[in-house]
Amino acid sequence: MSPLNQDPCLLTPGPLTTSMQTKKAMLHDWGSRDVNFIKTNQRVMTELLNIANGSKSHICVPLQGSGTFIVEAVLSTLIPKKGKALILINGAYGQRMVKILQYARRKFVKLETPEHTTPNLYEIEITLKNDQSISHVLVVFCETTSGILNPIEEIAKITEENGRKLIIDAMSAFGAIELDARKVSFDAMMASSNKCLEGVPGLGFAIIKQKAIENCHGNAHTLSLDLFDQWTSMKKYNQWRFTPPTHVIFALDAALKQFKIEGGISSRNARYKENSRILVDGMRALGFETLLPDELQAPIIVTFKIPADKNFKFQDFYELLSKRGYLIYPGKLTTTPSFRIGCIGKISAKEMRGAIKAIKETLKEMKVTNTASNLS
Amino acid sequence: MSPLNQDPCLLTPGPLTTSMQTKKAMLHDWGSRDVNFIKTNQRVMTELLNIANGSKSHICVPLQGSGTFIVEAVLSTLIPKKGKALILINGAYGQRMVKILQYARRKFVKLETPEHTTPNLYEIEITLKNDQSISHVLVVFCETTSGILNPIEEIAKITEENGRKLIIDAMSAFGAIELDARKVSFDAMMASSNKCLEGVPGLGFAIIKQKAIENCHGNAHTLSLDLFDQWTSMKKYNQWRFTPPTHVIFALDAALKQFKIEGGISSRNARYKENSRILVDGMRALGFETLLPDELQAPIIVTFKIPADKNFKFQDFYELLSKRGYLIYPGKLTTTPSFRIGCIGKISAKEMRGAIKAIKETLKEMKVTNTASNLS
Repeated sequence: MSPLNQDPCLLTPGPLTTSMQTKKAMLHDWGSRDVNFIKTNQRVMTELLNIANGSKSHICVPLQGSGTFIVEAVLSTLIPKKGKALILINGAYGQRMVKILQYARRKFVKLETPEHTTPNLYEIEITLKNDQSISHVLVVFCETTSGILNPIEEIAKITEENGRKLIIDAMSAFGAIELDARKVSFDAMMASSNKCLEGVPGLGFAIIKQKAIENCHGNAHTLSLDLFDQWTSMKKYNQWRFTPPTHVIFALDAALKQFKIEGGISSRNARYKENSRILVDGMRALGFETLLPDELQAPIIVTFKIPADKNFKFQDFYELLSKRGYLIYPGKLTTTPSFRIGCIGKISAKEMRGAIKAIKETLKEMKVTNTASNLS
Repeated sequence: MSPLNQDPCLLTPGPLTTSMQTKKAMLHDWGSRDVNFIKTNQRVMTELLNIANGSKSHICVPLQGSGTFIVEAVLSTLIPKKGKALILINGAYGQRMVKILQYARRKFVKLETPEHTTPNLYEIEITLKNDQSISHVLVVFCETTSGILNPIEEIAKITEENGRKLIIDAMSAFGAIELDARKVSFDAMMASSNKCLEGVPGLGFAIIKQKAIENCHGNAHTLSLDLFDQWTSMKKYNQWRFTPPTHVIFALDAALKQFKIEGGISSRNARYKENSRILVDGMRALGFETLLPDELQAPIIVTFKIPADKNFKFQDFYELLSKRGYLIYPGKLTTTPSFRIGCIGKISAKEMRGAIKAIKETLKEMKVTNTASNLS
């Protein structure tokens, strides 16, 4: 994963750079109803549950597709037709939950804060106290729109104290930032194979409180995304209802073994923090400004403000970096003019220093001298 | 893919045995919004459309997930909320469309025939003439429940003559049995990466008449499965709405190149027919009986009746064959006591002859002497 002699180094929020060992696990074929697949699938589900320390209280249900699929599946399976959600929004993934609930015809209210601001805890409490019909609180753990880390423990505490249920989109944090089912009270959290677990894309999963899913028969609005049906069927037959992405699951199995060897969440968190530190320090030394203050920044993806310099054109910057072997994230979701660079995947200090060097060279080639933003 | 020195030979309806070249295409990582991925994705979609000869009239829309996901997506996107479907059923996949429409709250009527019998064409015509509110006819091309091939051209003709729209679940036939958009009138057909195209699982796609999808805004009951939204977004940005299964798509790209080199549909059809002939001849020589008469049998998967001999226990048969390097399909869907053996995947005469030899040895080991069924 270094410049040009290999695949480009992916500095994105996932799909990301995975290890060769993970990819090589896909060099086989498996019968999806054969014991060899079933055993591996069970090992993966057990391991995911263990990462969340949820084996005594929660169950793990997998689902084909991208992160949005598992989020839509959980929201429609867990929130009953007469339920009502409070959606905490400070980015595109909060907004996506709004869209999902509109499709699924569930009632909701929103609490929005700007993309560089965490939710107002006092407002959450007041909203819950004033509207007793709210059954669920929905929150994104790390909003990759900006890279902000929302205060999940505080939100979980308020939700629990007010007798409501919490659903956490932990997509881009799971495996790198602790989310312990014994410490944080949640009914469900969702994540995917291709983020901090460093697998390949195609699989989502949810860690759901067993007591919560038991009552969910008939809630879901679609067959494919009916997690109650998926769960009961898997419990009964140890099998997926519909063809599983076998190769993606074996890649995740290999990735989880490496995750364990690396030292689990704390080691992965430390590596990503170091990646993020090198990136932010290096970019600041080049004059760039981060969107977020350091205390709100998760070590997953960092948003930088677009420089004021007229010579800075993002598309050129992207392509010239790509030629040097580094792919940053071309999609912008914030309202502030910005671009994002990811810190996750099978990359470490060497790759981050290489990226900073490539960015320095690229700025020189683009004749960019002023990297400060117009906005500061 | 031969006994024991390698992966077992998969004699299943998919996931199936793929070539090493196809699997090796997954030994890289790609940015899902990068030009390298976008180009490959476009090439795959173009190629799929070409296989159906649909490039002038139809468009191709991909979707994350298994076959059921793309079937549910097409049915809910194409059939308007006030539409009504006539579902032709002679197996489990016809029944699954019933379930999907129940979730999606669409009206439907059913025409059921036994699993070894094709739909009654006269009845289809009468039903359409008597119920003008039916907007769509739904049919499974090859029902892998039994392996029966439904008469798609005749059904398409009746549907068109009566001014209705046809949706075809072509999951297990696409690529091996001709379905030409210039000859057969259909609004949509659905298939997946891991059947006769010999890719790995995780991707479905639909070939949809452009005029049909243009009017589908607001039909779909879920965000994840909204194919109108997926189509308009891809047209506009050349990008998937949500993280695509990048590795699965590159594997399919490699598989499609091999499909072309092999000679397209006619060559793949010929290879599978030969596989099927060796299997059926060999099994009949051992005394087994097929569920279907030869004229209804597609060269995809063959259903054999369970032998009358008390020593024949399917689980033992399955496991002993597995030890010899051949995985047959453990799932039974027919009402008749039976088991199924697939003929598709990167396998040919050599593997089929090996399977027959292994079955012969297995029967001997099981002390099975009478392979005729109770039912004949």
